[in-house]
Amino acid sequence: MLKGHQSWLFENKPSIISTATVVGPFEGQGPLAEDFDIIHGDLYLGQDSWEKAEKAYMEEAAKMAIQHAGLTEGQIQFYLGGDLMNQIISSSFTARTLTIPFLGMFGACSTSMESLALSAFIVNGGGANYVLSGTCSHNASVEKQFRYPTEYGSQKPPTAQYTVTGAGAAILAPDGEGPYVTSATIGRVIDMGIKDPFNMGAAMAPAAVDTIEAHFRDLQISPGYYDLIVTGDLSKVGYLIACDLFHKHNIPMQQTTYSDCGMLIYNYDQQNVQSGASGCGCSAVVTYGHLLNRMRRGELNRILVVATGALLSPLSFQQKESIPCIAHAVSIEKSK
Amino acid sequence: MLKGHQSWLFENKPSIISTATVVGPFEGQGPLAEDFDIIHGDLYLGQDSWEKAEKAYMEEAAKMAIQHAGLTEGQIQFYLGGDLMNQIISSSFTARTLTIPFLGMFGACSTSMESLALSAFIVNGGGANYVLSGTCSHNASVEKQFRYPTEYGSQKPPTAQYTVTGAGAAILAPDGEGPYVTSATIGRVIDMGIKDPFNMGAAMAPAAVDTIEAHFRDLQISPGYYDLIVTGDLSKVGYLIACDLFHKHNIPMQQTTYSDCGMLIYNYDQQNVQSGASGCGCSAVVTYGHLLNRMRRGELNRILVVATGALLSPLSFQQKESIPCIAHAVSIEKSK
Repeated sequence: MLKGHQSWLFENKPSIISTATVVGPFEGQGPLAEDFDIIHGDLYLGQDSWEKAEKAYMEEAAKMAIQHAGLTEGQIQFYLGGDLMNQIISSSFTARTLTIPFLGMFGACSTSMESLALSAFIVNGGGANYVLSGTCSHNASVEKQFRYPTEYGSQKPPTAQYTVTGAGAAILAPDGEGPYVTSATIGRVIDMGIKDPFNMGAAMAPAAVDTIEAHFRDLQISPGYYDLIVTGDLSKVGYLIACDLFHKHNIPMQQTTYSDCGMLIYNYDQQNVQSGASGCGCSAVVTYGHLLNRMRRGELNRILVVATGALLSPLSFQQKESIPCIAHAVSIEKSK
Repeated sequence: MLKGHQSWLFENKPSIISTATVVGPFEGQGPLAEDFDIIHGDLYLGQDSWEKAEKAYMEEAAKMAIQHAGLTEGQIQFYLGGDLMNQIISSSFTARTLTIPFLGMFGACSTSMESLALSAFIVNGGGANYVLSGTCSHNASVEKQFRYPTEYGSQKPPTAQYTVTGAGAAILAPDGEGPYVTSATIGRVIDMGIKDPFNMGAAMAPAAVDTIEAHFRDLQISPGYYDLIVTGDLSKVGYLIACDLFHKHNIPMQQTTYSDCGMLIYNYDQQNVQSGASGCGCSAVVTYGHLLNRMRRGELNRILVVATGALLSPLSFQQKESIPCIAHAVSIEKSK
């Protein structure tokens, strides 16, 4: 199972048997609108706080993924997931609603692929018949916790990113019609000394490149193996830095097959999202919605999703620490 | 590997090849002092904030566990761990120092056994040669984040618990002289409606009993299989509630073989800890220090460690939510 130093090759190729994506109104105005299962017009989702709204998005995505698989909560062995809220309350409270045995994860915006990698490991190793993997974020709850409440209307520099309101979930099983999770590379923490929380793309790009480089080394493949490699969520600023780093490290990455979840979900011309999107929900809804739909349509056969996370807290920033970053890569293939 | 609905049986019996425990001055005054590798006289550990001190405790325990195993950081494939700080910064920043590929976990005080269970799963399934599993907590950083800064000297009710300052780490490998991790049961979230963050033992006891009941059902064994079953950290109040629940659920638990990590680490007569101890570090240092030493001395052959976690955040409390709780059980045996 271990391949190289930090990767797993899933010989039994766990199948993603269902997915669900639920997003907010702003994401529904973006170019991927048709890829999402539900677009809500209400950011609050009938709740009385942003945090409870975030949980409601996650609950809906989780329940819908279970329903899409034709299963009930009681048939799922484990739920792996996390979010950006302190003590990952969105996920923990969702686990309370679902009553599925729960393994809480935290890797900031990399949590989507951290959860998917471990879910695949568990299913591949015979540890479960069905695993639910999911992550979420909410623009207003994240802004309130990490920066300023959105109601303040504070301004942001062009390097900042816009947190996605949305939740994405997937059910994995040992057998199914695919797509299949075929390998994963777990990232190490990389910190190049960047301290600006309004420039997380720059902070995270080196972590993404480090994990991608490790993935190719461990699996003994090259970028050409994949039809598409997406990082998430470096957005414009981080994407260009990652491109520079690929070049410097002699990784033959083609810009035509390299993209970033943070650059796909919004329309830069019409939506004011600065550098692009971020949040645990971003790579989850882009992957489980848009990218898997493209695989289902036959446009993509092999993709590598490299979710990136900035592991800072408001307090570590206040204590003048730089931003430690991480990225986890999961490869998804259409055929066994 | 899956056994019953929510348990794993580790056929290859991963070995705990080394451990390390580092605690603060107050823990050094308790009855388990001789079981810890290092007792620091300084709560700050030379750092300029409580949070950085917590990280320094974790770094020291991690490095020492690696050293005790005769390994170097570069030989460890993965580090699984977490803590109570927002965005688990103590663990993420430790991962930055160690540069070991990192999987961040959050299950509040259950994180110790969540990490050990997943570490054992990974090693058992051939996913790593060596995995580092560790958790930490710091009394002053936790009090500051969840309640009041310790400098305020605020009073507490007798149901409150005292967060342990300490870090515990273990290295797992496919082979070794033991003790061995033989099975694990992943808990579901249980919430009986308790809202008082000064009575977490009462909130967590039903989750502990639910997981223990599932463990016996899934593994088809009874409490008599173990020489010792410890919950962590219910402390006095929660312990008595758990005893009542065992009785009500017809679980034949003997009080002589059932204990709680939160009741073991301090001296109730001389240390003012109200109901007892808590914190991610509590079950970690009690298990990796005290309990494994008792196994090494031949006093215990089979133990079940059931770490409990209260998955609240200060914000969920302020929003009048009750406290969702969880417990994960890991069985450790002296012989294969």
